[in-house]
Amino acid sequence: MSTPNTPCEQPPLHGLRVVEFSALVAAPSAGLALAQLGADVIRVDPPGGNIDVRRAPLNADGKSLYWANLNRGKRSVELDLRSSEGLAAMQQLICTAEPGPAVFLTNLAVDGELSFAALSKMRPDLIMVQLSGSPDGGAAVDYTVNCAAGFPGITGSGRDGPVNHVLPAWDLLAGATLVQAVLVAERHWRATGHGQHVTLALSDVAMAAAANLGYLADVQTNGTRRCADGNFLYGAYGDSFATADDRHAMVVAITDKQWAALLRATGLHTVLDAAAAALGHRLDSEAARYAARELISTALRPWFAARTLAEVAAAFGDRAILWGPYRDFAQMLAEDPRCSPANPMFVHTTHPGFGSFLTARTPLRFGALPTLLPGVAPALGEHTRSVLAQLQPRGAPSAGASERE
Amino acid sequence: MSTPNTPCEQPPLHGLRVVEFSALVAAPSAGLALAQLGADVIRVDPPGGNIDVRRAPLNADGKSLYWANLNRGKRSVELDLRSSEGLAAMQQLICTAEPGPAVFLTNLAVDGELSFAALSKMRPDLIMVQLSGSPDGGAAVDYTVNCAAGFPGITGSGRDGPVNHVLPAWDLLAGATLVQAVLVAERHWRATGHGQHVTLALSDVAMAAAANLGYLADVQTNGTRRCADGNFLYGAYGDSFATADDRHAMVVAITDKQWAALLRATGLHTVLDAAAAALGHRLDSEAARYAARELISTALRPWFAARTLAEVAAAFGDRAILWGPYRDFAQMLAEDPRCSPANPMFVHTTHPGFGSFLTARTPLRFGALPTLLPGVAPALGEHTRSVLAQLQPRGAPSAGASERE
Repeated sequence: MSTPNTPCEQPPLHGLRVVEFSALVAAPSAGLALAQLGADVIRVDPPGGNIDVRRAPLNADGKSLYWANLNRGKRSVELDLRSSEGLAAMQQLICTAEPGPAVFLTNLAVDGELSFAALSKMRPDLIMVQLSGSPDGGAAVDYTVNCAAGFPGITGSGRDGPVNHVLPAWDLLAGATLVQAVLVAERHWRATGHGQHVTLALSDVAMAAAANLGYLADVQTNGTRRCADGNFLYGAYGDSFATADDRHAMVVAITDKQWAALLRATGLHTVLDAAAAALGHRLDSEAARYAARELISTALRPWFAARTLAEVAAAFGDRAILWGPYRDFAQMLAEDPRCSPANPMFVHTTHPGFGSFLTARTPLRFGALPTLLPGVAPALGEHTRSVLAQLQPRGAPSAGASERE
Repeated sequence: MSTPNTPCEQPPLHGLRVVEFSALVAAPSAGLALAQLGADVIRVDPPGGNIDVRRAPLNADGKSLYWANLNRGKRSVELDLRSSEGLAAMQQLICTAEPGPAVFLTNLAVDGELSFAALSKMRPDLIMVQLSGSPDGGAAVDYTVNCAAGFPGITGSGRDGPVNHVLPAWDLLAGATLVQAVLVAERHWRATGHGQHVTLALSDVAMAAAANLGYLADVQTNGTRRCADGNFLYGAYGDSFATADDRHAMVVAITDKQWAALLRATGLHTVLDAAAAALGHRLDSEAARYAARELISTALRPWFAARTLAEVAAAFGDRAILWGPYRDFAQMLAEDPRCSPANPMFVHTTHPGFGSFLTARTPLRFGALPTLLPGVAPALGEHTRSVLAQLQPRGAPSAGASERE
């Protein structure tokens, strides 16, 4: 038996090669996670880049900070897939991984020569992991899946109609699920030598979430139609409050212990008990406090309004109180030590053409495995020549290959 | 070499046993995903259940639809970990997996006898995957991480202050990342025989997302302070609209092709070009349309307001148009074939004590691997006796074990 956390010199996914043909968030974020775990991820783009190459946010020179972050640690190959030479090079690139499995990851609508049927003829043990918008292969993006999946109708105050979350939550969750697919398929390959086609639909990711949280069952068994409810926590007590210095704080009291600590810190025990008794509310359970949430917030609101955020923080020194300040992205960087080099996940990294900024490694910390640096994105096509040369050791890069390297 | 999609009789994660000690969403959703892929997941709870056992939504009998969905396909063991017998049984349960690795998954603050240091003395190749709120091990939940991570300030109209997304996005994303951790650590175990302690902080999941999308780099390199911007898509054109029958639709035009299709379907080409020329706007690129988004929405709004959702759908027959109706959870079930038994992900399943409702399998479809049925949640403690009996073949269940089976 080994000793715990036996150090290993190789990164977690050493030896796994993935060809990524992708755009936007979902598959690129999956490729990023795989690269951050040590896989050799080769992103293939058409000459000049795919539709996400100039996606916002941009820097002052018009270069994409989005692309530069989502493609870190990958190699970049440009191929003109409209030419037969480019297509042949792509097939060869996908199918020639050795000694590990050949993994092809895509969220684009590939068919013909890049379909699983065609590629697996060339490489019978191919692993192809493919994301579509809908299960029928139809197009959908995070925004058009999100509107279909119920959540915008219960987000925000309800006064302005449905509210989209701005976080591309479905794309990120689909990306993390694609990583699971690659790892499970590789596990099966290692056990049996067999490849396979694994598919995932973005809409299924969203609809499974709505089902798994019980929201669809709530409709089917209770006929519930949930309404938007501001920043109230659902099912227990929690709400957001403005402070005297125009900041905001989120306060959560799920357990009795958290609730007792909140009452102690605010000194509102007597007041709230009296008000609850007068109005026929109880405050002695999670469900009762959820029912009394407006009353509780009515009592807490002036307490926060009379204090600055710093005064709230001082009053909430008890670790039993579950709360936090709202911060915009600039405030995260300025105020939160978790968003600074004090957190080993973040490293100040120089990105050629962009300067230095705080950059994230994988959030996973493996006791026995080395963590890679956050890495930087390749220049578009930076590895076209070197990658294709390995495919065709006796010839020059083919006519279908971009040669801007 | 094998043939493509060679069928295999075992589910994807056959042979992997995971002991889950958890509550709420993140770790339970990870255990659910693992169980849905065929792992043997044993959830351990204190007698009577953990803090999520009665979490909303509930059915008419007060039973949790949330718990019943997030714990499907698992076995349930009740153990009183305040007793030394219960604690010893828990240690034995975690450390005795054979022939696969011993995997302990938790999002609770375990220490002492259940720490990695203690458990790995009993099982040197233990894999322990542990989620905390903050990197220092401090408590945080989705709501108190979300307020710290910048997104509420850019969600909604901005008129009411920060807007929480209601989707527990960080919990679900952390859950999917925990599954990655289990799979990567198992991969390492199979290669080397070594276990390890893998840790993840919920706040790191959120802050890595803000970094990986370029939002933190945007602050650091451009000094940007993004504002809430309603339902506008960021960086290209997209917005939501009310229809004549009080429904809403989301419309997205990222590419030139999508934009051209939208203009064709609405017939607004001439009108919009004239208005744009008059106001000095251009409409011929993604970035230009983002800059002109209010103008574009001003032109589109009356078009939608004059049509019912069905009329919009008829006008948007062109598949090049990227759009979708907003649906609440009831409308998803009533209207969307993707949220019905027509989608193989969903299966009408009878849940003892709850009746039948549409239940989700894993959204991943493996060509070579069988898909499990969605499964049902165990009764709390349903497997206490049988699981403990396997640990202690010569004795009765210990005094620390609940015996409500």
